Amino acid sequence: MNTPSSLESLIEALRCLPGVGPKSAQRMAYYLLQHNRSGAQRLAESLQLALGALRHCQRCNTFTESEICSRCLSHKRDGSLLCVVETPVDMNMLEQTHAYAGLYYVLMGRVSPLDGIGAGELHLERLLARACDGVVREVIIATNYTNEGEATAHYLSELLRSRGVSVSRIARGVPVGGELEYVDAGTLAQALRERRPLVG
Amino acid sequence: MNTPSSLESLIEALRCLPGVGPKSAQRMAYYLLQHNRSGAQRLAESLQLALGALRHCQRCNTFTESEICSRCLSHKRDGSLLCVVETPVDMNMLEQTHAYAGLYYVLMGRVSPLDGIGAGELHLERLLARACDGVVREVIIATNYTNEGEATAHYLSELLRSRGVSVSRIARGVPVGGELEYVDAGTLAQALRERRPLVG
Repeated sequence: MNTPSSLESLIEALRCLPGVGPKSAQRMAYYLLQHNRSGAQRLAESLQLALGALRHCQRCNTFTESEICSRCLSHKRDGSLLCVVETPVDMNMLEQTHAYAGLYYVLMGRVSPLDGIGAGELHLERLLARACDGVVREVIIATNYTNEGEATAHYLSELLRSRGVSVSRIARGVPVGGELEYVDAGTLAQALRERRPLVG
Repeated sequence: MNTPSSLESLIEALRCLPGVGPKSAQRMAYYLLQHNRSGAQRLAESLQLALGALRHCQRCNTFTESEICSRCLSHKRDGSLLCVVETPVDMNMLEQTHAYAGLYYVLMGRVSPLDGIGAGELHLERLLARACDGVVREVIIATNYTNEGEATAHYLSELLRSRGVSVSRIARGVPVGGELEYVDAGTLAQALRERRPLVG
């Protein structure tokens, strides 16, 4: 169609980005070429740099530039608590609460049979080794409360409990500031079922 | 926040893409690193390649890898018709109709005072030179029917007519297959005003 091949390749390559279809890829390519060539140059360099520099932390599996990430090396963290999350973003969200001083294990995914991701794809051996290293006292499962996240949590808790590890799950219920009127029925039902005794 | 610097740079660099904010950029970066490293590698290479290879056609201003694009060099096109469009995407849309065999001029933008783009930024000297070269018989203005596209069309038609060039504008009206019930009032009003006599 008279489109130069390097332009066609760029449009095709942009489709590797999640959520970017043929129309968006075309728009992005023309935008970069016309209005932001320096940004495109920076993007190319950052991609190369990140691909070369980033690997998985040997302890928590998140992305890091060294063998073991700075969080795992920190002496200020409580090594007896291990929080399991699906992604590095989830870990960042928990960090932003400033309510957790333990360590993490990032699954880099979730059990999702529909996408062909079984437990085998998650390489849980390293998590198991971590959880059974004698230092970890409790594993907190903080996967999402989606179907896949729940399935992952269920599978993990069975696996860990069978090895005698103490396992907990982050609470689910009415959000802070939430009004019952606007909370969905499923959440409200769980909040009722998982009610806590008030003491004092 | 314990994020490796190369990862931070990548997230920041991804924001050069139109419509990509901090959350999407983060999602994209983690997705590429975890699930599509080869795609990311290809993207980096395609960006470099496209930035190096693509420039503006000396005749029609679209992106090309050579001095003059293959469409402008083609002997099958009617050089007496010159269609002015805002972007290469618009040109592709018109080409897909197979209803136009003339040549094009791509503005690579539109007059948009709110974005600080006046007529000066569009470098219209080359379009004027093209339109007045003695070969072009009619200039068809095919800018969008948005406010900016209309302003651009108005400005261009004044400019071209003052130089004695014959100017036309693509028709506006009810879309093919369109039902009056679902057409907006503005379009319908224009379709009425710009009605054509039926002959035969």
